[in-house]
Amino acid sequence: MACCRSCFCCQCCCREGETRTPEELTILGEIRDDEDEILPRKDYESLDYDRCINEPYVEVLEGLDNKKARKYEALRWVMVFVIGVAVGLVGLFVDFFVHLFTKIKFSVVADSIEKCTDRGCLSLSLLELLTFNMVFIFIASVLVLIEPVAAGSGIPEIKSYLNGVKIPGIVRLRTFLCKAAGVLFSVAGGLFVGKEGPMIHSGAIVGAGLPQFQSITFKRIKFDFPYFRSDRDKRDFVSAGAAAGVAAAFGAPIGGTLFSLEEGSSFWNQALTWKVLFCSMSATFTLNFFRSGINFNKWGSFQLPGLLNFGEFKCSDGEKKCHLWTAVDLGFFVLMGVVGGLLGALFNCMNKCLAKYRMRHIHPKARFIRVLESLLVAMVTTLVIFLASVLLGECRDLSSPTTHNPTVSDSEDINSTIRQFFCSNKTYNDMATLFFNPQEAAIHQLFHQDGTFSPVTLSIFFLLYFLLACWTYGVSVPSGLFVPSLLCGAAFGRLVANILKVKLGLHIYSGTFALIGAAAFLGGVVRMTISLTVILIESTNEITYGLPIMITLMVAKWTGDFFNKGIYDVHIQLKGVPLLEWETEVEMDKLTASDIMEPNLTYVYPHTRVQSLVSILRTTVYHAFPVVTENRQNERDFMKGNILISNNIRFKKSNIVSRAAEQRRRCQSMKSYPSSELKNVCDDQNAAAAAAPAEEGEDLLQQMLERRHAPYPNLYPDQSPSEEWTMEERFRPLTFHGLILRSQLVNLLIRGVCYSENQSSATQPRLSFTEMTEDYPRYPDIHEVDLAMLNPRMIVDVTPYMNTCPYTVSPNTRISQVFNLFRTMGLRHLPVVNAVGEIVGIITRHNLTHEFLVAKLRQHYITI
Amino acid sequence: MACCRSCFCCQCCCREGETRTPEELTILGEIRDDEDEILPRKDYESLDYDRCINEPYVEVLEGLDNKKARKYEALRWVMVFVIGVAVGLVGLFVDFFVHLFTKIKFSVVADSIEKCTDRGCLSLSLLELLTFNMVFIFIASVLVLIEPVAAGSGIPEIKSYLNGVKIPGIVRLRTFLCKAAGVLFSVAGGLFVGKEGPMIHSGAIVGAGLPQFQSITFKRIKFDFPYFRSDRDKRDFVSAGAAAGVAAAFGAPIGGTLFSLEEGSSFWNQALTWKVLFCSMSATFTLNFFRSGINFNKWGSFQLPGLLNFGEFKCSDGEKKCHLWTAVDLGFFVLMGVVGGLLGALFNCMNKCLAKYRMRHIHPKARFIRVLESLLVAMVTTLVIFLASVLLGECRDLSSPTTHNPTVSDSEDINSTIRQFFCSNKTYNDMATLFFNPQEAAIHQLFHQDGTFSPVTLSIFFLLYFLLACWTYGVSVPSGLFVPSLLCGAAFGRLVANILKVKLGLHIYSGTFALIGAAAFLGGVVRMTISLTVILIESTNEITYGLPIMITLMVAKWTGDFFNKGIYDVHIQLKGVPLLEWETEVEMDKLTASDIMEPNLTYVYPHTRVQSLVSILRTTVYHAFPVVTENRQNERDFMKGNILISNNIRFKKSNIVSRAAEQRRRCQSMKSYPSSELKNVCDDQNAAAAAAPAEEGEDLLQQMLERRHAPYPNLYPDQSPSEEWTMEERFRPLTFHGLILRSQLVNLLIRGVCYSENQSSATQPRLSFTEMTEDYPRYPDIHEVDLAMLNPRMIVDVTPYMNTCPYTVSPNTRISQVFNLFRTMGLRHLPVVNAVGEIVGIITRHNLTHEFLVAKLRQHYITI
Repeated sequence: MACCRSCFCCQCCCREGETRTPEELTILGEIRDDEDEILPRKDYESLDYDRCINEPYVEVLEGLDNKKARKYEALRWVMVFVIGVAVGLVGLFVDFFVHLFTKIKFSVVADSIEKCTDRGCLSLSLLELLTFNMVFIFIASVLVLIEPVAAGSGIPEIKSYLNGVKIPGIVRLRTFLCKAAGVLFSVAGGLFVGKEGPMIHSGAIVGAGLPQFQSITFKRIKFDFPYFRSDRDKRDFVSAGAAAGVAAAFGAPIGGTLFSLEEGSSFWNQALTWKVLFCSMSATFTLNFFRSGINFNKWGSFQLPGLLNFGEFKCSDGEKKCHLWTAVDLGFFVLMGVVGGLLGALFNCMNKCLAKYRMRHIHPKARFIRVLESLLVAMVTTLVIFLASVLLGECRDLSSPTTHNPTVSDSEDINSTIRQFFCSNKTYNDMATLFFNPQEAAIHQLFHQDGTFSPVTLSIFFLLYFLLACWTYGVSVPSGLFVPSLLCGAAFGRLVANILKVKLGLHIYSGTFALIGAAAFLGGVVRMTISLTVILIESTNEITYGLPIMITLMVAKWTGDFFNKGIYDVHIQLKGVPLLEWETEVEMDKLTASDIMEPNLTYVYPHTRVQSLVSILRTTVYHAFPVVTENRQNERDFMKGNILISNNIRFKKSNIVSRAAEQRRRCQSMKSYPSSELKNVCDDQNAAAAAAPAEEGEDLLQQMLERRHAPYPNLYPDQSPSEEWTMEERFRPLTFHGLILRSQLVNLLIRGVCYSENQSSATQPRLSFTEMTEDYPRYPDIHEVDLAMLNPRMIVDVTPYMNTCPYTVSPNTRISQVFNLFRTMGLRHLPVVNAVGEIVGIITRHNLTHEFLVAKLRQHYITI
Repeated sequence: MACCRSCFCCQCCCREGETRTPEELTILGEIRDDEDEILPRKDYESLDYDRCINEPYVEVLEGLDNKKARKYEALRWVMVFVIGVAVGLVGLFVDFFVHLFTKIKFSVVADSIEKCTDRGCLSLSLLELLTFNMVFIFIASVLVLIEPVAAGSGIPEIKSYLNGVKIPGIVRLRTFLCKAAGVLFSVAGGLFVGKEGPMIHSGAIVGAGLPQFQSITFKRIKFDFPYFRSDRDKRDFVSAGAAAGVAAAFGAPIGGTLFSLEEGSSFWNQALTWKVLFCSMSATFTLNFFRSGINFNKWGSFQLPGLLNFGEFKCSDGEKKCHLWTAVDLGFFVLMGVVGGLLGALFNCMNKCLAKYRMRHIHPKARFIRVLESLLVAMVTTLVIFLASVLLGECRDLSSPTTHNPTVSDSEDINSTIRQFFCSNKTYNDMATLFFNPQEAAIHQLFHQDGTFSPVTLSIFFLLYFLLACWTYGVSVPSGLFVPSLLCGAAFGRLVANILKVKLGLHIYSGTFALIGAAAFLGGVVRMTISLTVILIESTNEITYGLPIMITLMVAKWTGDFFNKGIYDVHIQLKGVPLLEWETEVEMDKLTASDIMEPNLTYVYPHTRVQSLVSILRTTVYHAFPVVTENRQNERDFMKGNILISNNIRFKKSNIVSRAAEQRRRCQSMKSYPSSELKNVCDDQNAAAAAAPAEEGEDLLQQMLERRHAPYPNLYPDQSPSEEWTMEERFRPLTFHGLILRSQLVNLLIRGVCYSENQSSATQPRLSFTEMTEDYPRYPDIHEVDLAMLNPRMIVDVTPYMNTCPYTVSPNTRISQVFNLFRTMGLRHLPVVNAVGEIVGIITRHNLTHEFLVAKLRQHYITI
């Protein structure tokens, strides 16, 4: 079976770099079920991380002084502290109940086994264990049924969120409840899953939700706390929350901060990073405070940093020649890194195939099938644990287990987790010691227990664990991957140490090798670099491990990247999330903005009739519309004499045609509008004639200065284009004035911001910033708007509400520059504007995904 | 004296927020000697961190494939590794010789004192000590005379460099030699200085210099290694080198990485950060490897992480109730943070006054005066050390010094550094123990020696050290500030611990209080946050200190920021460096780009005569020129009918006048040009008439498409403006096409890139990318160009060499957006372009400094 699987996998892996024709590749945005490759989907929304500078915002700005700004800043500090404490408490909750459930389970089963070993009723013990595990897993998977987003580790989702992609339901209170409760049961149920990933996800939700003081899940939770109601602020708090999650999980506040930087931010913002670090510290020490208090009854001291802690690596004082590691060992570490990378690549490959299989054959079916799968996994895991312990464990002498450092109080704990199952009085079962303990205890055993495990046991354990963990990740229960990977890798490292010690007789510290093995395998699977290095250093509390861990991770990543992506990126890709990488490849710089932009624009005029707006909103799915003006009178002059001014225009034929097509579609769609007045709109042509009375007699300079105060002359609205236009008419320059968001337009319509034809636009009611952002984060949809309430002939002046100065790029800009601007500034729409201020296209996230760029580059090579 | 000083200081401090009229403030860019406030100077050059996309670069791009890109990447990895190792070796060198010299000095003097205590010849011992110190300091200050930039810690300079300001000579080989050798002697000479700052500076120089494989100091060093020859690459390596410096100094690779992020980068670039971390690790472990090998003769093990190491904080195993710290202690830590912040602010304030005094009274005088000052400081320091030890030290019982943890091998070292001077056999001198040891040993004493120091001794020590360290920082020897601050703060912390233990009878761990005191004072002085937290955590190798250190640093920073800036920022300000902060204040968003831009533009045309270029280059100091075209024929149309198209124009009256003035200046300057043909150039007016023959008959669309291939029609050059122009003529729109750098123009002139009037521009010779960048980093000056070689009537086509697509902003863009774009992308010139593609101004670093923005904001308030 494993063989068959890996065949299948190799096929997947190889297909990664397969050649396709550019035509095929350019058809992006759809999941093609019959293809192996999943391309980024276009139906993901982006988040608005850029500030929108419009009049309501400027009003707020004008009212803002440094005192108020300082108040906001102080509020931010309070919020990050509260988030940190809350995440710490969540961690405490999870940890406490996991411990409780696991303790109950193992003590009942252990009692039963000890009794039954003599009496021969082992099947009864197995049944007990099975019942426990199946019930726990059943609860976990039912919780996930309630909120499917709560499945898995949540790191891919949080990574996508921080990258700027909205994944529905990912930061909701319901998801949090299902995730936090679910992970309890999935870990307690004995599955090979960790609680670290879900902790990070939970932390992120706490970060997103707490500062809002309202909930969509529970409508009753709604306080009047109108700060931080923007995607931008939310992202900052999500970063902090995710970092706090890592910090609580591993006791690694610095690692957590770097995690949120590595996975999320593109912008090194000192103030934010400092807050994130503070949040992480708060979480770590809240958890530490309560755990130390509860476990040791030493309130006020701080002795148990994180949920996962690797214990102290320490040479015994007696041995003067003992080193944790030497320069010679580094060579072995590099080799282990290579092997870890290979194993990780295999793991990811197998998991990818499984995930695809699930997407095709399990997800389309009824939901309870997923519960059954979870139960199946639980059953198989339980059977494997039990049978392996009974049949494959070796009975080893109890006297041999001595830790390196007997003075450390940890050693008592380590010896207490040794299992004597099925063995005679003075011996113990090494396989059971690994399987019949919480995973953290097993990791401790592998790191610190000297000379306990036989190579055969370690090999079998590694193999079983590898396969089961791979199968488990993706089952619909909340499941992390860190601890299983660490345990699996630790077994591998311990195996290497055993071989080196026994076969080669080297004088090495086997705990170090177990740690390096764990790092190598985890690095091979997740391919994180900086943050993982720091997390592992912090978990071991030993700076001197920095270099070996780093080298191992580096080698593992390089080796693994040769074959496929990290597990999180694999799952992001499978979801079709249009993630933006760190930077583009150098080769992509052969393309320019005009090569990749979307030239089909749907635009609005500064003053537009309600009917046009409604039809635009109803017939398109874009989230932003450029506000443009056309200029028919001067067109001929432009075309004739003024070559220099418009010399950057690079319209293509396709562009023009499709813009015409777009306009045709809009006209057609307007006919389905319920108003009776709409039929003749499309023929309404002679509108712009009387536009903008020019004050010719006045002093030119004065005129220029005054224009500042009335930037948008009251253009007669609705110069809707018609089918009868000539090519020349269609190919008119559209001067770019600003961007307006869909949500803003809908808001304007709902709140009746418009004026009638015979009045001036000054009579239009004005919205304040609060009114504009009141509905965050769920702005009403255009299809929810009652059209009967709207007068279609009224005119909306959008100019006060549009973003007048978004970042723009020129069509010649190279991709690396476009990409840096887009990713670093967290943009959602990037207009491409030529040298004379005409908009020629727009770039969104989808135009910058790796797949899209590769397709465009192929086209570029073909046209050359 | 101290009183008088602090009076003077208070005055300085208070003046910080003094109100001035906006007129006064807007006159920026000059040092006003009679004023206390020093404003950013305009004569600092910026560095070019942005890529210049021109035709030679595009050619390189087209030739680039992923294979070559991977080769470059591999080369980068090799380079950072080499830099790391080199920095580690530099650290080793410095450490070895400092140890050697200090050992020789102290052993000779200690012998002499021991003999003389009985014989009463103590003045002889003093003389010996004086001789040693004066000779060492003399050498150090002579080395600084050779290269004055080598004085001080170098951190302000490196911070400025990474921020994008070129400070002459800061990364040269000569500076490196003087700094590395100088710091040996200044530390060995017993001054209250550290070697950490100079280590960071040395690391940065190694990073900047190594990948260049050439040197300006030693012309013979010139290998053919034409990679990484750009400011952009250099900055990356400088970041890595500086991080490696921190890593080597403190054994803190993660802290070093964060230091380079916090002080330098604005851009979180994962790939770069990973390289920086690798570089830091290499440095740490190179140093560790050699030091462990040399000191313990244990080659291959890693036991001595950094030059500065705080030893192990550990409760003795016997005491079960011993905690390093408890929740209750946090309250004291906050108070200590406040006091540390206050002390730091006082330190910075006094040092600022001293530095100003030096700038006014010492620097203008002959250079040897500086040597005399150094010698004076050395003499006073030596006298204080000696006299304080003789007169003020307490003789304490030798039996009392017991370390907390006698099992640690460090304790032997600690007891070995106890000094018995002037005391009877079984007692020792506590003041001498602090003063007659290297500073690192004194820090160890304060951190780990229990019950050794009397409160009186600690108070006197703190006071003397505080004043002397303050005086010393700024003397012209290479001098760091970390170790003196740590020692000073540790004395303060130890004092607090003594008081709490004795007076209040609390059960505390005094080492922790010494550490927190050190953190508080250092934090109060340097005001670093994230990186300092991590550096201290890594130096103690104790993650559990994270929270207390962080809280202390946070409180110290906030307290200190209430009064003045951090010491490095103070010195940056004193130098008048136009540093860009992290972000602008929220209030600044009331301004827009048009409020702060420089509207006086000096521009060039796409095709310009050599004579014009020479005169522009000779009469201006700008480093970039917008390439623009004017459009006279259409001007009236623009002004009249086409209001919409140019509705974003916000020219001001001042703008127009000054542009005219600028043109007048240019015309005048041209008259001083040696060529005889130049006189009539300014009257040369009827040039543009025949411009760009329009192919009217052709298909419009075809024409648009073709325009792509000939973007710059061969405009008749040199439409130089004249004095006789009407206001309207002068106020013509300038369409923006690109930016060209001064260095590029000079390069074009030197290499004879031009064509004669009767030929087409295609005959102009073409330069390759290599030829364009050959002279990096010192491009020839225009004044070095031999004008006789140039034919002034020839025409230069600059279009292939200009940057065609720099980032631009619209005049309405808010300051925060402008600032983010500018700082994050590392720009040097940011053109402000209106909605119709006309350039209306340019923003450089000077327009974004805090002082300039504040002045503009005041103007804004007044005009409202």
